[in-house]
Amino acid sequence: MKNILILGAGLSSSSLIRYLLQNAEKEQWHLKIVDQNKEVIEKKINGSKFATAMVFNALDPIERKPEIEKADIVISMLPARFHVDVAKDCIQMKKDLITPSYVSPEMKALNEEAKEAGIIIMNEIGVDPGIDHMSAMRVIDEIRDAGGEMKIFESFTGGLVAPESDDNPWNYKFTWNPRNVVLAGQGGAAQFIQEGLYKYIPYYKLFRRTEIIDIEGYGRFEGYANRNSLMYRELYDLEGIPTIYRGTLRRVGFSRAWDVFVQLGATDDSYTLEGSENMTNRDFINSFLPYNHSDSVELKLRHYMKIDLDDSLWDKLVWLGIFDNEKKIGLKNATPAQMLQHILEAKWQLKPDDKDMIVMYHKFVYKLNDELREITSEMVNIGEDQTFTSMSNTVGLPLGICVKKILNETIQLKGVVIPTHRDVYNPILKELEDYGIVFKEKQIDPPRLYNTEETWK
Amino acid sequence: MKNILILGAGLSSSSLIRYLLQNAEKEQWHLKIVDQNKEVIEKKINGSKFATAMVFNALDPIERKPEIEKADIVISMLPARFHVDVAKDCIQMKKDLITPSYVSPEMKALNEEAKEAGIIIMNEIGVDPGIDHMSAMRVIDEIRDAGGEMKIFESFTGGLVAPESDDNPWNYKFTWNPRNVVLAGQGGAAQFIQEGLYKYIPYYKLFRRTEIIDIEGYGRFEGYANRNSLMYRELYDLEGIPTIYRGTLRRVGFSRAWDVFVQLGATDDSYTLEGSENMTNRDFINSFLPYNHSDSVELKLRHYMKIDLDDSLWDKLVWLGIFDNEKKIGLKNATPAQMLQHILEAKWQLKPDDKDMIVMYHKFVYKLNDELREITSEMVNIGEDQTFTSMSNTVGLPLGICVKKILNETIQLKGVVIPTHRDVYNPILKELEDYGIVFKEKQIDPPRLYNTEETWK
Repeated sequence: MKNILILGAGLSSSSLIRYLLQNAEKEQWHLKIVDQNKEVIEKKINGSKFATAMVFNALDPIERKPEIEKADIVISMLPARFHVDVAKDCIQMKKDLITPSYVSPEMKALNEEAKEAGIIIMNEIGVDPGIDHMSAMRVIDEIRDAGGEMKIFESFTGGLVAPESDDNPWNYKFTWNPRNVVLAGQGGAAQFIQEGLYKYIPYYKLFRRTEIIDIEGYGRFEGYANRNSLMYRELYDLEGIPTIYRGTLRRVGFSRAWDVFVQLGATDDSYTLEGSENMTNRDFINSFLPYNHSDSVELKLRHYMKIDLDDSLWDKLVWLGIFDNEKKIGLKNATPAQMLQHILEAKWQLKPDDKDMIVMYHKFVYKLNDELREITSEMVNIGEDQTFTSMSNTVGLPLGICVKKILNETIQLKGVVIPTHRDVYNPILKELEDYGIVFKEKQIDPPRLYNTEETWK
Repeated sequence: MKNILILGAGLSSSSLIRYLLQNAEKEQWHLKIVDQNKEVIEKKINGSKFATAMVFNALDPIERKPEIEKADIVISMLPARFHVDVAKDCIQMKKDLITPSYVSPEMKALNEEAKEAGIIIMNEIGVDPGIDHMSAMRVIDEIRDAGGEMKIFESFTGGLVAPESDDNPWNYKFTWNPRNVVLAGQGGAAQFIQEGLYKYIPYYKLFRRTEIIDIEGYGRFEGYANRNSLMYRELYDLEGIPTIYRGTLRRVGFSRAWDVFVQLGATDDSYTLEGSENMTNRDFINSFLPYNHSDSVELKLRHYMKIDLDDSLWDKLVWLGIFDNEKKIGLKNATPAQMLQHILEAKWQLKPDDKDMIVMYHKFVYKLNDELREITSEMVNIGEDQTFTSMSNTVGLPLGICVKKILNETIQLKGVVIPTHRDVYNPILKELEDYGIVFKEKQIDPPRLYNTEETWK
């Protein structure tokens, strides 16, 4: 029997644990799952004899180390900032480690030590980051293998509500951490490169600089730029590529309406509102509008944001109840972002039978034999229910499959890595298809360029 | 002879030193002026026998302390962050201290120690802060002495170019630290209270929420909100006032045009532009605009910012040369704000004979005998030349006069203070009039209210 130690059994681990238990008998695995909450673990184990629930504080090295010692592989589902401590234990005890989170500089610095210990520390092996790396690198490597030269790489991912559960004017519900959605795009200008020119978009223009993307069978989406696309040049070995852009997908019309909150200042998380505990939704909105003793909040907002009478954006705002004056929001010393999140959570909630959806889209333009060509790669995945959501499946399955491929030595890489190597993405993408996570690649002819074809030659 | 020690002889000390030297013989003063640059001091002393130039590093306590020991009063013109160290020396050696800078929390914490040492540490005794405190408090105290109750307090200050030197479409030139002008309004939402309602304006709406102010004999100005007006309730003992607002003055039309740079993201100081050293003005502007292989930067900007063909705002932008593609800006690893400052400095420069101007405006609405009344107080001061600028005079003269009033014991206050006490502002405002710094107070009838008069009763 091989021992798999899972640290943390929060929301995102449901699909991971199910996958591992489904494979446990055949692969001869035993799972030890650590969390502070025994019920949460037992619900996920669901009576399986291949798993043991362990209740202790996984952040405490004294409690954690003996269990790492006994494990063959460790999966850290802890909050990202704790991964480095776990990684140091794993290096010391020569145990492989897997996390779904971004590689921090501190984690990156452990690369040589991990190699010397003969272990793999696999990171960014969820959906975004994770499936995005794998599905993009597969196409990029194919293009290069054929002798092609990459000219444009664009990549978009969105966590959305499934079409069958999409019943509100925003075409959006919270399917993941609402706070991250409210704060999305803050913390610095978006940076990318287009046709060799560096481009910068400040936060307060981000949601007005969207691009339209068509996904076969699912209609139109829009994408806004992620904060830093430039670092993907190094990650994907695309130094010198003239165009690289990464973004987030929403349904068309979302960003224009969301921008109203951005422009008001209602997404600010840097100060608290005076008397927030006594504010209604209407008071909250009014605090960002000029004072007038008789004009309505509605008209002031329409005028301030130049919203026409027949603009469907207005329906989105009204539907959220932002003009309601009945009951207090009730948050004390709250920031604008916290107040807004509270208003949104009341409306962007998934109903019990609702399903979520992950959409991913890549565009690749390359030069082969002096001709420009385009490939797109798209994936849509719908959740099963509110436990095995698409978010949980697309994070948990690549993690689980990666564990299997490491334990059975299909993946033999060592050091601090992300899944951009073909020895990693090939077996994992292949097995993901068995679970309905399938990328459709299409040749687009003629290629869609930002410039005339002559300038490329 | 009384010894006055001046630490730092930078730009802003010209008028201060001239005032002190003019009074030195009569008042029996001797000045010791410390700077790293002997020439700078000697130019300001101009051969007077009442002053000595001392060249050492005023930041070094070992060099500084013996001179503080010999002084009767110390004036710190050092950068604001060094005042607290000087203050601690002054407390230890029981010497009065004057600075033009804002009271930091660390400075405030020295209040009891200063009182115990029997010294005054006077801060915020320049123009803004300084003359604003004094001129506002004089009216507020008059209103209260008569039994009035303050309802509205609004206050605006601007450092501008004098009308006779105003020859560009922005009606603006740099008359003080250009970097502060480029970064103005950043660092948090503007906060104020209007008719009892708290109002918040994010940075990226600040320059579109201006108010128009008329100054007798000088025409129309516009004001945009300063970052925090709310703290003035405590400073001026105005707790419970329904409306308090402080702002910065510009000529009408400035803010709307400046907002173009804000919206582009060209005032961002938080990241550096790739290849900034090779950018022309045009490249710089283009880096914030969507890519297009054939559209002009001009048309892209017009479209992005919705600037009509006949909008005079356009003339302002063209006049600045932002579309020039001839020569490189030449700054390496520069932030957008640094690049923009460089472009502006080439155009918003004062010519040798140009003069600057300080404009200050206060509005007071109060209830007296159940009636609402309004007083305004305005001051316009024009600089003499490029040494004795209005900025230098309005900073240096209150400092110098304050020194005199402390040395001759007209001002006997102790502790860490700002000039909001009538024993301070009365003698200083009176003498400032001799130098043409005069506030015109006017009763406005009927008072200009934000609400109907009934709601006040």
